[in-house]
Amino acid sequence: MNIRKIEHLGIACRDVEKVAGFYSQVLGLPIVSRETIEAMHLKVIKVRTGESVLELLEPLEGESVIRTFLDKKGEGFHHVCFEVEDVRAATGELKANGLIPIWEEPKVGAGGRRVNFLRPGQTFGVLIELNQAVE
Amino acid sequence: MNIRKIEHLGIACRDVEKVAGFYSQVLGLPIVSRETIEAMHLKVIKVRTGESVLELLEPLEGESVIRTFLDKKGEGFHHVCFEVEDVRAATGELKANGLIPIWEEPKVGAGGRRVNFLRPGQTFGVLIELNQAVE
Repeated sequence: MNIRKIEHLGIACRDVEKVAGFYSQVLGLPIVSRETIEAMHLKVIKVRTGESVLELLEPLEGESVIRTFLDKKGEGFHHVCFEVEDVRAATGELKANGLIPIWEEPKVGAGGRRVNFLRPGQTFGVLIELNQAVE
Repeated sequence: MNIRKIEHLGIACRDVEKVAGFYSQVLGLPIVSRETIEAMHLKVIKVRTGESVLELLEPLEGESVIRTFLDKKGEGFHHVCFEVEDVRAATGELKANGLIPIWEEPKVGAGGRRVNFLRPGQTFGVLIELNQAVE
């Protein structure tokens, strides 16, 4: 599998504007986007650092994985996303190694990127996303 | 504050060799070092991805922050480290912004790097390390 970099680090937040204020005003990291993803009931602010992004995630009204996470564990690290050349090939390799990605085939996620995930129970407590740059 | 990149991502592990095996053999990330830090009761394996490193941390016998963390929260994300140009200046800036870094002045940590930390209670649940490259 050809992992290029940490594409982003997902962070669960109760108030994403407040957290983005901390990263941008105190730590000096530039805000790159603000989005509302209605289908996932999420408000997302992205902040850049080097070749990676911090993806700050706040649940909107309704069910979302981030709301569940906040209720159980509170604010903080949610997942890490590695960028690979080919998520479909990576999914096949993971299965050949006995792992079970959450989707049989990658899905198209935010920004048109193909993505898949590995559950923390299989990866020593770390929720891992794999995504692929849009060419 | 001039943050250059995510220098590393610290991950708490029960068996660092097993976790390093997953990242190196399954995900294909190269192992860059294996260390035992006696003073901190830690075994550390570093794995590279792009400009960042995953720092896999296993507690040795005796007290350590990682043992406490594992007992409370289990395996997974422990901290993120941002590389800054000057940790001493960054510490001053943080204090000017009303934050209280764990040390009044940065300490010299692993690999001779100057480091300081911000507690998760001040940073929306994320334990943040700042370090400075050795020139």
